[in-house]
Amino acid sequence: MAVKFSTQHEVVYYECDFNGRMTFPAMIAAAIKTSEDQSEALNRGTDFVNKLGLTWILTNYQLQITRMPRVGEKLTISTMAMEYNKYFCYRHFWIADAQGNQLVLIESVFALMNIENRKMASVPEAVIAPYESEKVTRIRRYPKIEKVVAGQSQFYQVRVYDIDSNHHVNNAVYFNWLLDVLGMDFLTSHEPVSALIRYDKEIEYGVQVESRYDQVPITNENGEALITTRHEIRVGAAVCCEANITWRKK
Amino acid sequence: MAVKFSTQHEVVYYECDFNGRMTFPAMIAAAIKTSEDQSEALNRGTDFVNKLGLTWILTNYQLQITRMPRVGEKLTISTMAMEYNKYFCYRHFWIADAQGNQLVLIESVFALMNIENRKMASVPEAVIAPYESEKVTRIRRYPKIEKVVAGQSQFYQVRVYDIDSNHHVNNAVYFNWLLDVLGMDFLTSHEPVSALIRYDKEIEYGVQVESRYDQVPITNENGEALITTRHEIRVGAAVCCEANITWRKK
Repeated sequence: MAVKFSTQHEVVYYECDFNGRMTFPAMIAAAIKTSEDQSEALNRGTDFVNKLGLTWILTNYQLQITRMPRVGEKLTISTMAMEYNKYFCYRHFWIADAQGNQLVLIESVFALMNIENRKMASVPEAVIAPYESEKVTRIRRYPKIEKVVAGQSQFYQVRVYDIDSNHHVNNAVYFNWLLDVLGMDFLTSHEPVSALIRYDKEIEYGVQVESRYDQVPITNENGEALITTRHEIRVGAAVCCEANITWRKK
Repeated sequence: MAVKFSTQHEVVYYECDFNGRMTFPAMIAAAIKTSEDQSEALNRGTDFVNKLGLTWILTNYQLQITRMPRVGEKLTISTMAMEYNKYFCYRHFWIADAQGNQLVLIESVFALMNIENRKMASVPEAVIAPYESEKVTRIRRYPKIEKVVAGQSQFYQVRVYDIDSNHHVNNAVYFNWLLDVLGMDFLTSHEPVSALIRYDKEIEYGVQVESRYDQVPITNENGEALITTRHEIRVGAAVCCEANITWRKK
C-alpha cells in the first residue's frame, strides 16, 4: 500500500480570483507541487527522472469539488501514487480545509515522455518503486468527455510565462484559457462541482490557441439542475485538450 | 523609526519561467503579500481599510536587481514603511537569499483610493500610525521614465483572472504584458538589472491592452554596455502604465 504524503498550503491573495476563491490554475499548481515534494523526499525528483532522458507529463484530471478553497485558508494537500501499469501512473490528491473537511479530490494520470523524441516511454521500476504503488495490468477508463457541439471561441496567444521547464505550455495554464471564455458574469454566479480534462497534444511557445466551448443543462442523481460546459483547446485543426466542467448556480 | 517586517518564502516551480528563474509577477506578488502580512499583524489589513471606504493602490515601483531568485530558493522578504506624506506612502522591500545576500530591492509608492468614486484619498492617521513611518511634506521624485519612440506592439485581452478584489487588473499582471513582448529569445539571453514602472490609470475587465516597446543601448557608470527596454501599456489612446527595464546580456 502506497504512503500518503501531505503538505500545508496557505491560500494567498494572488492565487485567488476577484471573489477571493482560489483559481483552478493555482489549485492545480499547488497540488502538483505536493507530488514534486514527495518525489524529492523519495529521491525521485526532476533530476533523477531527467537523467534517464525522461520527464513527467499529465494526461488526465478528474476533479470532484465540494467547494473551492478561499483566500487565507490553511489547506492540507495530500497525495498518493495509487497504482501504475506499463505506461500510466495514477495519482490522487486530496485538498482539505483546516478542520479536515475534504474540499477537492483530484484524480490524475501521469505518463513519462522521452525528452529527445517527445514520445511516451514505459515506466521504469527504478522510477516508480519507491512510491510503493500497486502494479496493475488494466488501463483505467475515465468517464467520456462530451464534445463541443455548437461552440463559441476565443483566441489566446501562448506567452513566454505559459511555458514550463519541459518547453511546452504548463498543464495548469490550460485552465486559464478554458475558464476565461466563460466570462466574469458566469464565473461570479456559478460554483464548479466537477471537472474532467484530457490533454491530447502538447502546445509550444508562440502559437495561437482557440478556446471553444458550449453549455448544456444536466440533472444530477439528486434531481438537481446543473450546467455542464464542454470545452476544447485547438491549435489550428488539432484538438490539444478537451474538458467538461459541471457547475451549480449560486 | 519604522520596524522591518519579514517573511520566509520558498520559490516553487510555478513561480518560475522555463529557465527556473522567478518571474516578475510572482516576485512582485510575493513582496506585496509580505506587506499585507505586516498590515494584518498591525490590525490594518484589507478589512480595516475597506471599512473606511478606501483601498490601497500602487503607483510606482523602482527595482534594483542583483539577480532574480531561482526555483527552490528559500527567500527572506523584508519590508518597511519608510515615510509618508498627505497622499503617498513609501515602502521598501528587500529580497535576500538563504545566506542573507540581497537579491532585489524594491522601492514602492502606495496611495489610497476611495472605493466609491475611485479617486485618490489623503492618508488617514488611523491607517498609517501603527507602521511608525516618518511623516514628511516632500513628494519623492523618481528617475524619469523614458518614453517609447519607435515601438512595436502586441495586444492582450484582459482576462477574468487578471482582475483582483479591487475590480481592476492587479499590478503584478502588467509585468506579464510588459515582458511577454520581449519574446523567449531575449528573455533567455538577458538578465534584468533594474526597472522603473509607473501606473497611471487603472485597467478594467474586458478591454484590450496594447503593450508597446522599443530598446536602446546604454552604458552604466562602470562603462558596461547594457540595454534599456522602454515600455508603455495603452488602452486605446490612453497610456495606463510606463516602464523602463535595464538588462545585461548573459
